[in-house]
Amino acid sequence: MRIPNHLGVIPDGNRRWAVRNGMTKEKGYDSGLDPGLRVFKLCEEVGIKELTFYGFTMDNTKRPRVQRLAFTKACVDAVKLLSKENAELLVIGNTESKMFPEELMPYTKERKRFGKGGIKVNFLVNYDWKWDVGNLINGNGNPKSPMEYIKSKDISRVDLIIRWGGRCRLSGFLPLQAVYSDFFIVEDLWPDFKEEHFHEALAWYDKQDITLGG
Amino acid sequence: MRIPNHLGVIPDGNRRWAVRNGMTKEKGYDSGLDPGLRVFKLCEEVGIKELTFYGFTMDNTKRPRVQRLAFTKACVDAVKLLSKENAELLVIGNTESKMFPEELMPYTKERKRFGKGGIKVNFLVNYDWKWDVGNLINGNGNPKSPMEYIKSKDISRVDLIIRWGGRCRLSGFLPLQAVYSDFFIVEDLWPDFKEEHFHEALAWYDKQDITLGG
Repeated sequence: MRIPNHLGVIPDGNRRWAVRNGMTKEKGYDSGLDPGLRVFKLCEEVGIKELTFYGFTMDNTKRPRVQRLAFTKACVDAVKLLSKENAELLVIGNTESKMFPEELMPYTKERKRFGKGGIKVNFLVNYDWKWDVGNLINGNGNPKSPMEYIKSKDISRVDLIIRWGGRCRLSGFLPLQAVYSDFFIVEDLWPDFKEEHFHEALAWYDKQDITLGG
Repeated sequence: MRIPNHLGVIPDGNRRWAVRNGMTKEKGYDSGLDPGLRVFKLCEEVGIKELTFYGFTMDNTKRPRVQRLAFTKACVDAVKLLSKENAELLVIGNTESKMFPEELMPYTKERKRFGKGGIKVNFLVNYDWKWDVGNLINGNGNPKSPMEYIKSKDISRVDLIIRWGGRCRLSGFLPLQAVYSDFFIVEDLWPDFKEEHFHEALAWYDKQDITLGG
């Protein structure tokens, strides 16, 4: 079976899940922590080398304060969980804004090893696609690739993106790394994660042809 | 019903269709002309204001010469067909390469009106996403939006992308205009276009929430 090198995860549906379960919207984020750890462990098992999680965006921070505090805390807690695993973490996002959690600053300058190292984990926190590509410069004419100039240049091309929650769109997720990505959409909401979702996505990916635009 | 302002069309599957119908691959492109005109007319009917077709990319031109000549001719023929309609055409692509068809040069400098004018039609011809965003400059610090600096800056945000041929990916289609686009995938190949595909896509789009990243 052909395994993607780099998996992108868009963990959507936390708020819808909370409402469906009789809670207020901000209560949904905490239930996204365990799915995240399980996806990480599944990636370890099958040999995926790089994993990017969509944490939250600068646009998301315009939501009600109680929601913002809840999803920010969930991101900090996710890193605490990951720190007990074998992984190499890089957090990418706009650190110059107050919305960026102080606790995650140590992971923004360079990739940080946890345990014995292993999967590269990228975590988009206070990310914004315009912020990401706004750094592109033309330099002295033609740069070899625009990818050398974006803020997320340490994140490689994404092979497969799995999005939970039924929407079929990128919502600003790494637009330049995603140009050739295959998207697999899971109808279930992220807190309703099941291991089958992951395996179904990989089985589907295995059947796609890879042309990289050729 | 909520109608998208801007529809993107990825007309994939011409070569697979030709092979399935006992022809050599390059014979498939000609059968994509009529579907293109029909989509245009459907857009007129429902009131879509802007329509972008993915013609061919710089990467595509590395395919065998006989295929390249066939898809290039189909693009030129498509513009001839469109010229009999009411529309406003802009062709976007790398005109500095020999692969760009001379016949389409007149449509690359500014949007050209056909008939009484009407839908803005954008046609990506010898397009390349790296070429498109490679023009981004940081200017004097922070540009208001990277969208002002890309080569396709006259093409607006895409609301809905319909892709024929079963693949669920962008394949380099306008990465910055597509950040919030909803993708609708049609399993049938482009030459097997049916009007139901279009109507199904619009009915699906009507049910999606629009958050633009919020």
